[in-house]
Amino acid sequence: MNEKPFVVIMAGGIGSRFWPHSMDAKPKQFLDVLGTGRSLLQMTYERFASFTSPERLMVVTQAKYSHLVKTQLPEIKEENILSEPLKRDTANCIAYASYKIRNTDPDAKVIVTPADHLILNESLFKARIFDALKAAEIPNHIVTIGIKPNRPETGYGYIQFIDGSDRVVKKVKTFIEKPNRELATTFLESGDYVWNSGIFVWKNESIIRAFELHLPELAEVFEEGKAYFFTESEGEFLKKAYSLVKNISIDYGVMEKSESVYMVLGDFHWADIGSWQKLYELQTQDGQGNVVEANALLYETNNCYIKVSPEKLVVVQGLDNYLVTDTGNVLLICKLDAEHKFREFTADAKSKKEDFV
Amino acid sequence: MNEKPFVVIMAGGIGSRFWPHSMDAKPKQFLDVLGTGRSLLQMTYERFASFTSPERLMVVTQAKYSHLVKTQLPEIKEENILSEPLKRDTANCIAYASYKIRNTDPDAKVIVTPADHLILNESLFKARIFDALKAAEIPNHIVTIGIKPNRPETGYGYIQFIDGSDRVVKKVKTFIEKPNRELATTFLESGDYVWNSGIFVWKNESIIRAFELHLPELAEVFEEGKAYFFTESEGEFLKKAYSLVKNISIDYGVMEKSESVYMVLGDFHWADIGSWQKLYELQTQDGQGNVVEANALLYETNNCYIKVSPEKLVVVQGLDNYLVTDTGNVLLICKLDAEHKFREFTADAKSKKEDFV
Repeated sequence: MNEKPFVVIMAGGIGSRFWPHSMDAKPKQFLDVLGTGRSLLQMTYERFASFTSPERLMVVTQAKYSHLVKTQLPEIKEENILSEPLKRDTANCIAYASYKIRNTDPDAKVIVTPADHLILNESLFKARIFDALKAAEIPNHIVTIGIKPNRPETGYGYIQFIDGSDRVVKKVKTFIEKPNRELATTFLESGDYVWNSGIFVWKNESIIRAFELHLPELAEVFEEGKAYFFTESEGEFLKKAYSLVKNISIDYGVMEKSESVYMVLGDFHWADIGSWQKLYELQTQDGQGNVVEANALLYETNNCYIKVSPEKLVVVQGLDNYLVTDTGNVLLICKLDAEHKFREFTADAKSKKEDFV
Repeated sequence: MNEKPFVVIMAGGIGSRFWPHSMDAKPKQFLDVLGTGRSLLQMTYERFASFTSPERLMVVTQAKYSHLVKTQLPEIKEENILSEPLKRDTANCIAYASYKIRNTDPDAKVIVTPADHLILNESLFKARIFDALKAAEIPNHIVTIGIKPNRPETGYGYIQFIDGSDRVVKKVKTFIEKPNRELATTFLESGDYVWNSGIFVWKNESIIRAFELHLPELAEVFEEGKAYFFTESEGEFLKKAYSLVKNISIDYGVMEKSESVYMVLGDFHWADIGSWQKLYELQTQDGQGNVVEANALLYETNNCYIKVSPEKLVVVQGLDNYLVTDTGNVLLICKLDAEHKFREFTADAKSKKEDFV
C-alpha cells in the first residue's frame, strides 16, 4: 500500500461569472487572474504537489479543456487527465475519479479540491490537510475542510458543526446553501458555522461506500467502469456513463445525506475566486477603493475594478462600485456585485455571436 | 458690386468636449458625428452654398487643419481657406476674413457661421438669412440670428432683445453668457430672451467700423494686411499679426459693446452640437432613453449614450445618464452632462501620451 494520497483537482467549470475574461474556450482556472504569472490551476497544482507524487495527481476536466491541462501541467501523466464528455456537477466528477483510483490502489486516501481557490498561509494549510488525512483513516469517514468565517459572507455555502470534545475534528451537522445577509450574520455570531471550502479528504472506499448508499444509480454506472479505465475504451464508456447519470453536486448528493461527515477547521486564509467581486476584494485597493489594472484616469470614481489592457487609455468619471473590463472583443461595464447577472450576460452575448462567450 | 454675399465658415475649433472622438488631429467639425455620411463642416458648406458662388465662400481654420478643409470641400478655392497660425477666438478669426474680403470687394455683405451647428427646416432658415441680409444693408448694423428657446437650456448663451414695432428685426439689448438653470427658466418665461446662434450678417464695412471702434488695436494690425492678402507673404504677415493681437471672442470684443446690434428671430430648428449631451439629445432615444450606436446588450440601463465600433460587444448593466464610448485608443465612461470635465480629461490624457488627444 502506497501511503501517499491521491489528489484530484476538479477543473471542469466554465467560470461564467468571470466573463468576458473567462471564456468558454479558456475558463478562469486556466487564467492568471491574480497576475502572479501562474494560472489558478497551476497554483492549485503547486499547492498539492508536495502531498504526493505526480502519478497520483489527477485533474478532472471537460474533454475540450484537456489540452489546456496538458499544456499548463506538463508534469501530469496523460492518463491522469480525466476528460469528462459533458459538463457535469461535482458528484459525477468525483465518482469518475474515485472508481478510476479504485483500479490502481483500492486502499488509497484521496484529497479532492476545486481548481479556483486562493490559499495563503500554506504551512497552516498543509497541517490541516494532514489533520484531515488522519481523520479520514476511520472507515466511512468523509472529511471536509471548513473555513472560519471573518465576515457575514453571502457568496459562500456554510457548514454547521457540532462542537464536541475533539479539538481538531468536528462532526458536521448540516450543509447550508449561500445564505442571505441576515442569516450570514447570525451564522457568524453563533460561532458554529464555517464556510464550505469544497475541499474533501477520505479513503477512496469511504466515498465509494457513500455513493452506494446515497447515489446507488451513480455507483452502479461507474462500478462498470472497472473493465474500461486505463484502456482505449475509457472514453466510450464515459460517454455512455455520463449520458446515464443525473447531474448532481457532491454536497447535495452525498454530504447533506451522510451521517459520517466530519470537518477539520481551516485557520488559513482562504478565498473562492468565484466572481469579480471576490477577485476585487482580494486585491490591494487604492485610497479611493479602486483596483486598477489599466492605464486609467479616474475622476470621482470609487470602489471600482478597472481591468483593461494598458495600450488603451481608460477614462472613467462618476462611477461607484462598478467593474469595467475590456478583452478587445467585449467591453463589460456592470455593478461589481452583479454576479447573479452573468448567466444572462453570457447567454445573450452567445446569441449575438458564439465567439463572444 | 456683386450682390452675392460672402460666407465665412469658422472651422478652427478643437471640439475638446467631443473627445475622444474629436481629436487634436481631427476635430469634430471634420467628423460625421450625426452619421449622415457628411461631416459637420460639409453639412454647413452645403447649407450656405446656395447663398453665394464658391469663390465667395471662405473657411477659416487652424493651419494644421487646412488640408482637412481642402479634402472635405474640394470646391473651395485654396486662397479661400484662411489658415490661422495659432488657435484664436472668434474676433481674430472674423477680423482676418473681413480685412481679406475688403481687398476683394469692399462693398460685400458677409454671413459668418460656426461649422458645428445642426439646422433643420432649411427653407425657414434661408428666409431668416435673407431677412438678416436685408437688415444688414443699413450701414453699421450688425445683425445676428437669435433662436427662440424651447427649454431652459444652460448650455447656450442668450441674447435679450427689445420688442419694438418691427416684427422681423429687433434691437439687441444685451448678450448673456451661459446662465444657470434658474436664470435660464426666467429667460424662457420672460419671452424676450433668445439663444445666441453665433451666426452673424453684416456689410463688411460695418464690422470693420465696429472693430475700429471697439477693438482698435486689432483693427490696426489687420488693416496692415492689405498689402499682403492674396500674396505669398500672407502667411508671414499673419504669423506677425496673430502674435500681436489679444485673444478675444467677437461676443466679448464687439457684440457686448456695440449699440448697433440687431437680431432676426430664427424660428427654424437649431442646435449647437457642442457636447456629447447635445448630440445625445439630437438623436432618437429608445424606450429606455438610450441612444445606442454599438453592438450592445443593456441591462437596467437608462438615458445613456453608447457609441462603440460594432465589432466589439458592449455589455452595460446598471448605468443611468452616462456616456460610454471607445475609439480603439481610448475608452471613456463619464456622466453624460460632464462637459465641464473634458478640459481636465484631455489635459490629463495628453500628459499620458500626446496621441490620446
